[in-house]
Amino acid sequence: MTAHPVNGLDDVVHQRVRLGILAIAHEARRVEFGFLRTALELTAGNLGQHLSVLERAGLVHIEKGYEGKRPRTWVNLTPTGDKALQEEIARLKRLIRQVEQATP
Amino acid sequence: MTAHPVNGLDDVVHQRVRLGILAIAHEARRVEFGFLRTALELTAGNLGQHLSVLERAGLVHIEKGYEGKRPRTWVNLTPTGDKALQEEIARLKRLIRQVEQATP
Repeated sequence: MTAHPVNGLDDVVHQRVRLGILAIAHEARRVEFGFLRTALELTAGNLGQHLSVLERAGLVHIEKGYEGKRPRTWVNLTPTGDKALQEEIARLKRLIRQVEQATP
Repeated sequence: MTAHPVNGLDDVVHQRVRLGILAIAHEARRVEFGFLRTALELTAGNLGQHLSVLERAGLVHIEKGYEGKRPRTWVNLTPTGDKALQEEIARLKRLIRQVEQATP
């Protein structure tokens, strides 16, 4: 038996909120904390926790600074993060093909 | 801003192991506990916990019985479970399209 596609999924990337962060950061290249919070309907604490997981794994780079006098946090996808997102997508496609082939 | 596709994902279904259980049960219609455990590389305890979550949500039906003298547990996808899997797949496809449209 060959390994089922879900066995190769990485929980760091697959988790719903983190997959959303990576997808949006991929689309936008550089995305502001408040924008992510609104787009993903999260509290600041919850978003912060998921960003820490992604940062520790080297998938995003967090940048703190100011926009005028307002403190701002920006999230950038790293090359490792982009590669991890592409791998997740490739595995999801394999999973979807497998399910759809079994659909009568 | 329209809702991001990940906002509609259901954590009960999206979680890696549970997505695997639903996909395999969809492919096989009725699947034995030991087969699932091997296919998903899980301990019996871990698989049992995920099956309980799916059963409480009405997505699988658990059937206990015997094969000869050996106790066996079978897992069946319910119509609700099949619908939930199809919805997950539809949302994942939307997410994949969105990421791929943003890929240079």
